[in-house]
Amino acid sequence: MIKIGILGYGNLGRGVECAVKQNPDMELAAVFTRRNPADVKILTEGASICSISEVPDWKDRIDVMILCGGSATDLPEQTPAYAELFHVVDSFDTHARIPEHFANVDKASKKGGKVGIISVGWDPGMFSLNRLYASAVLPKGQDYTFWGKGVSQGHSDAVRRVEGVKDAKQYTVPVDAALEAVRKGDNPTLSTRQKHTRECFVVLEEGADAAKVEKEIKTMPNYFADYDTTVHFISQEELDRDHGGIPHGGFVLYSGKTGWEEENSHLIEYRLKLDSNPEFTASVLAAYARAAYRLGAEGVSGCKTVFDIAPAYLSQKDGETLRASLL
Amino acid sequence: MIKIGILGYGNLGRGVECAVKQNPDMELAAVFTRRNPADVKILTEGASICSISEVPDWKDRIDVMILCGGSATDLPEQTPAYAELFHVVDSFDTHARIPEHFANVDKASKKGGKVGIISVGWDPGMFSLNRLYASAVLPKGQDYTFWGKGVSQGHSDAVRRVEGVKDAKQYTVPVDAALEAVRKGDNPTLSTRQKHTRECFVVLEEGADAAKVEKEIKTMPNYFADYDTTVHFISQEELDRDHGGIPHGGFVLYSGKTGWEEENSHLIEYRLKLDSNPEFTASVLAAYARAAYRLGAEGVSGCKTVFDIAPAYLSQKDGETLRASLL
Repeated sequence: MIKIGILGYGNLGRGVECAVKQNPDMELAAVFTRRNPADVKILTEGASICSISEVPDWKDRIDVMILCGGSATDLPEQTPAYAELFHVVDSFDTHARIPEHFANVDKASKKGGKVGIISVGWDPGMFSLNRLYASAVLPKGQDYTFWGKGVSQGHSDAVRRVEGVKDAKQYTVPVDAALEAVRKGDNPTLSTRQKHTRECFVVLEEGADAAKVEKEIKTMPNYFADYDTTVHFISQEELDRDHGGIPHGGFVLYSGKTGWEEENSHLIEYRLKLDSNPEFTASVLAAYARAAYRLGAEGVSGCKTVFDIAPAYLSQKDGETLRASLL
Repeated sequence: MIKIGILGYGNLGRGVECAVKQNPDMELAAVFTRRNPADVKILTEGASICSISEVPDWKDRIDVMILCGGSATDLPEQTPAYAELFHVVDSFDTHARIPEHFANVDKASKKGGKVGIISVGWDPGMFSLNRLYASAVLPKGQDYTFWGKGVSQGHSDAVRRVEGVKDAKQYTVPVDAALEAVRKGDNPTLSTRQKHTRECFVVLEEGADAAKVEKEIKTMPNYFADYDTTVHFISQEELDRDHGGIPHGGFVLYSGKTGWEEENSHLIEYRLKLDSNPEFTASVLAAYARAAYRLGAEGVSGCKTVFDIAPAYLSQKDGETLRASLL
């Protein structure tokens, strides 16, 4: 049994707990929280709930620590800090800081003789894998990534910070015409506005000025100004009833050419349609926790990404069974 | 430079030649043929055309031999025979015989200190990878593979063997309703007939009985009897003009559940739409030739499949560049 620790018990941490339940070769040893452990209820019978300060005491009782904090401030500190004690897996997704994070985790993992796998999930993660496989197979080609339809947490937060907004959800929506142009093999150059639209469902504070709120959202730099944005005003009841989920997904399309004169076209399309963004991400983390454990058992150490892990390490099945059942 | 040899110069071998041209870290050293080398013309300037009997003389001048023969009789003999001399890559696709082929290639590769990668292409190959990744990430789920729309060589040959048929092409076509049922998350149980239809374009011999030919095709056991088959009679001119290509492709769909009570559904869809089946397969072979070469340089030996190869080995780019550009 692979003994799993979860650090951080928000949506992602709860998703990992559910994923561990689906993997019979794993067991949840403990959940670590910054809150008072007495205030935290988990779903798994027999697993411990501990303060984050107790993590080092679990060095010999946890094989893989899955880090479920945020990329902005938690993971840059936590992953390197714990990579020396355990095999670790995280979903670090601040693209510009990946080289720095990789170097920090690599140093700590090697010092502890452990494996650290960073930037695991679906983007970065499964989408990255598809970009890599497609571009390696068809060097003459171009990739396109579309996100959605799905809830963007960051954009929802941005809308909620607007004066007069009581609550809000924001959906990122890929533009069908852009998807179709790529599928046709046109290799179009697409602007930000041509690829995605943004749709906001907003609950106003009592007495707020709807027109003013809408204008402020639509012109918000970085978040909305470069997109065609739709704003719907609804009641809190409607928001809770119709927009309570955290769906997401998207597309990686790759259009490439082969032939002596590049006369033949090929389209590779990978699509995810997810009811729950955090639960899917958590499921990817669990599969890579297995890989970390197995690589560690082989004496490997240091920082890895999804690019560095042979697919067979993710599966419960052995090589012979995989070749017989899935090849 | 990775020095590539091609054994067998049919559609697949020519596809490998084109793929090598697209990969600046590879060069084609020689093509080996069972025909008289003087009768074979290739596209690459400077590459040799040799008789298959000369293969052993190239032991030190070729890094990776890409075997482009058929799975029925060529590859079971050739891959193990040459795996001791070179790193080898093949597209062996007789599913039931993979364990035996794996064992034979493994023995020869290990004896020669070489890497042999078998069953490379899109199915087996890229489709297999998608079945593996999806099932590892979502253990509670089911995969569905659909082929087409595309030309099946085996079925086209079977139609051509019918008395009264002068020439023919057969397309395998996935059934839209079945695809949609899987996409909806219904996890349907689908019969052979429900998943694919078969469409034949047939040129009759002069004086042949069309009704008799059509009946013989539609009732042919193994090939057509279990499918809804459509037969179109056309002229040789129309066949040559409209059905000269070798397109193919298909879908791997995976429908899975997450959540404590499996309350959330997820759909993973991978689609290929290929103008040229052999050129795409050849492009996958070339990428895995790079992996074989690199693994060999690390001292690895023995038989591998796509499941055993970390994705980074396929790319021309180094780890740092991959993390910066594709992660």
